[in-house]
Amino acid sequence: MNIELINTGTELMLGAVLNTHQPWMCRVLAGHGYLVARQAAIPDDSKNIREAVREALSRADLVITTGGLGPTSDDLTRDLIAELLGRKLKLDASVMAHIESFFAGRKRVMPASSKVQALVPEGATVLPNLHGTAPGLLLEVSPGQFRQSDGPSFLIMLPGPPRELRPMFIEVVVPWLKRQFPQSVAFASHTFKTTGIGESLLEEAIAPSLQPLIASGLEIGYCARIGEVDVRLSARGPQANGTVEEACALVRRLAGEYIFGCNDDQLEAVVIRHLAERRQTLALAESCTGGFISNRLTNVSGASAVFQAGMVTYSNKAKESLLGVQPETLAKHGAVSEPVAREMAEGARARSEADFALAVTGIAGPTGGAPEKPVGTVFIALAGPQGTVVLQRLNSYDRETFKYVTSQQALELLRRTLAGISTSAS
Amino acid sequence: MNIELINTGTELMLGAVLNTHQPWMCRVLAGHGYLVARQAAIPDDSKNIREAVREALSRADLVITTGGLGPTSDDLTRDLIAELLGRKLKLDASVMAHIESFFAGRKRVMPASSKVQALVPEGATVLPNLHGTAPGLLLEVSPGQFRQSDGPSFLIMLPGPPRELRPMFIEVVVPWLKRQFPQSVAFASHTFKTTGIGESLLEEAIAPSLQPLIASGLEIGYCARIGEVDVRLSARGPQANGTVEEACALVRRLAGEYIFGCNDDQLEAVVIRHLAERRQTLALAESCTGGFISNRLTNVSGASAVFQAGMVTYSNKAKESLLGVQPETLAKHGAVSEPVAREMAEGARARSEADFALAVTGIAGPTGGAPEKPVGTVFIALAGPQGTVVLQRLNSYDRETFKYVTSQQALELLRRTLAGISTSAS
Repeated sequence: MNIELINTGTELMLGAVLNTHQPWMCRVLAGHGYLVARQAAIPDDSKNIREAVREALSRADLVITTGGLGPTSDDLTRDLIAELLGRKLKLDASVMAHIESFFAGRKRVMPASSKVQALVPEGATVLPNLHGTAPGLLLEVSPGQFRQSDGPSFLIMLPGPPRELRPMFIEVVVPWLKRQFPQSVAFASHTFKTTGIGESLLEEAIAPSLQPLIASGLEIGYCARIGEVDVRLSARGPQANGTVEEACALVRRLAGEYIFGCNDDQLEAVVIRHLAERRQTLALAESCTGGFISNRLTNVSGASAVFQAGMVTYSNKAKESLLGVQPETLAKHGAVSEPVAREMAEGARARSEADFALAVTGIAGPTGGAPEKPVGTVFIALAGPQGTVVLQRLNSYDRETFKYVTSQQALELLRRTLAGISTSAS
Repeated sequence: MNIELINTGTELMLGAVLNTHQPWMCRVLAGHGYLVARQAAIPDDSKNIREAVREALSRADLVITTGGLGPTSDDLTRDLIAELLGRKLKLDASVMAHIESFFAGRKRVMPASSKVQALVPEGATVLPNLHGTAPGLLLEVSPGQFRQSDGPSFLIMLPGPPRELRPMFIEVVVPWLKRQFPQSVAFASHTFKTTGIGESLLEEAIAPSLQPLIASGLEIGYCARIGEVDVRLSARGPQANGTVEEACALVRRLAGEYIFGCNDDQLEAVVIRHLAERRQTLALAESCTGGFISNRLTNVSGASAVFQAGMVTYSNKAKESLLGVQPETLAKHGAVSEPVAREMAEGARARSEADFALAVTGIAGPTGGAPEKPVGTVFIALAGPQGTVVLQRLNSYDRETFKYVTSQQALELLRRTLAGISTSAS
């Protein structure tokens, strides 16, 4: 089963936007055992769209395009694909009615240009769009038209806006795919998420013991990101489940302390879950991370049961008035120091009456460094029922990466503390 | 000049990570007038890498690959490309010395696997990696080996980690590109960033007046995202600058109130700049956005001159103790209400002594809605020297989109107030 994705949009080629469709669709498909063989992004111009779709149809069983179904003049996908496949476009009355009611229901005037979204290529199946105006379109392509094969191939056009595309993909495309291309070989996959250890050292720790399983079909993939390394263990065939389970047990034994979760787990959600299970609460005092840790935690549904309050105290004045940091401590040690981090955490814990409080103070840069405290210096404090610990780290990155890495270290300090794992190793 | 990008990584095809290389490289190239014709992402397997590189070399003047140069067993790019081009790999002594000193300088043990990163294909130019171990590699491909053309084509392999790739791209690849492929035709481009108006209505407002310029070569591209629509005006040829300037003047006249910036501008940076110019300060009181607005503002270098303090007050208790919201107001109107938003903004302004304070309180969902206050309901208050205004909005999105849209509306309320534009229209 060979799937290719084509994302159209000149804005993608100008780098104006992130291509979030690709990872999202790939993740959903992988969850059902389908691996995308290729993804291409191309500008909204006739030559590139025609070429890329023709080439993909010459290789793939299923080609999925996103974008270019909108009402403006640079939306070309529907027209070009109809032409390439030799299908006429016809106004679909039910789609037209849907578009009209969509605008009426929102008390908005329908722009005249929206009418083109009701044009449907002959023989296409319309995939209803519950969250917008452009329907998705599914076309069966005869064997021989673009590639030599026994069976037909398929082309699906999906709208670009994520909140239109995503429900359509989950509710219509995936069920269709599972009917049309059922999995013939068992597939098993497990991804461990780790933090606090580099990619090479992790491989050194686990790869030798996994060798025998590789001989029987185990595949290992490492994905190193700043602040996180994923290890993906997968296998196909009748033994797939057993092989992956055995590999998981080995990895847990060899590198368990670094594993904070699996598959789609995120460190902030893991921490919220651990605290919620213990009915404990958390407060935050952030200087250099500027609300980033609060934001990560409050992305988790259910955070309100755990997260009491966050104070973003950029200025010394705010550290004093909101957290009760002593002016003398600031004067003697500076805002970026072990004693200030400690007082921030203890102040946040006392004032919020939370069980735990995390505090960070550091130099995000690009300016503000000094020889004894270079840009990237950060102190991370955790105040809890057993007392306060403070870690010092040097995170020499750009501003946004600095925030991310620091938040990862702070959340990991809390995770290790809750799990009873030594924090000196983190 | 035809450029193609190939990003390798099975993790990309599993959707485990966002492809941030593509937009970043495209944006840098577009800034120098080079448009990427195609970008492909493929898994780390020999068949796909070989096919995709061969196909790209059959079309493009320049193929750039990222990833697959690391030390682990799934890093295949270097080997496969050397094989495809018929070049032998040789250990490069200077690269080896760099790798050894890289680990020594960080007081880390060099993993044995790192040695493969010193293997260089015959005839390749080594692009030094100042922030990691794998060098970039530049290869000239003879005309006729993969495509019929008069001149050679080129292949550049770059390492995957962004902080290794980005400086190498800016400092080495772009200068080389400008020498090797100087721009023959003038190119001009300008992108307006707007918020508070939809894509179709924006096109209706500006497109009719732009028609005469389209006849003389103007291209218009719209990029609609939640909370933001970009309009890109571009042209090529000797009249490019004049055409784009004239188009810009028209768009400013017809839709100026919605324009918050241009090109890479971000709303948070625009707001910080306006406040800094007026030497005014800002405080935040966030409930449902949970620190997201603080985080956006503190991503801007220089935010510390403007941003006094942020309070993330999820619980009623925190709204009372940190902001001075009256218990009776909470009891009578509920936490998500016009009076509470007003008291939050006024409390944050008074306690921080900032010139302005923004406050948001709402229901991010997925739970917590009620018939009279459905999920997505939000009140946004701005307290300032002229008094307090409160907007009510209904942002019916998933949790993270809700935070983004709400933050956009809050920052836009502040931008309009600072610019003296009516806020009822926003």
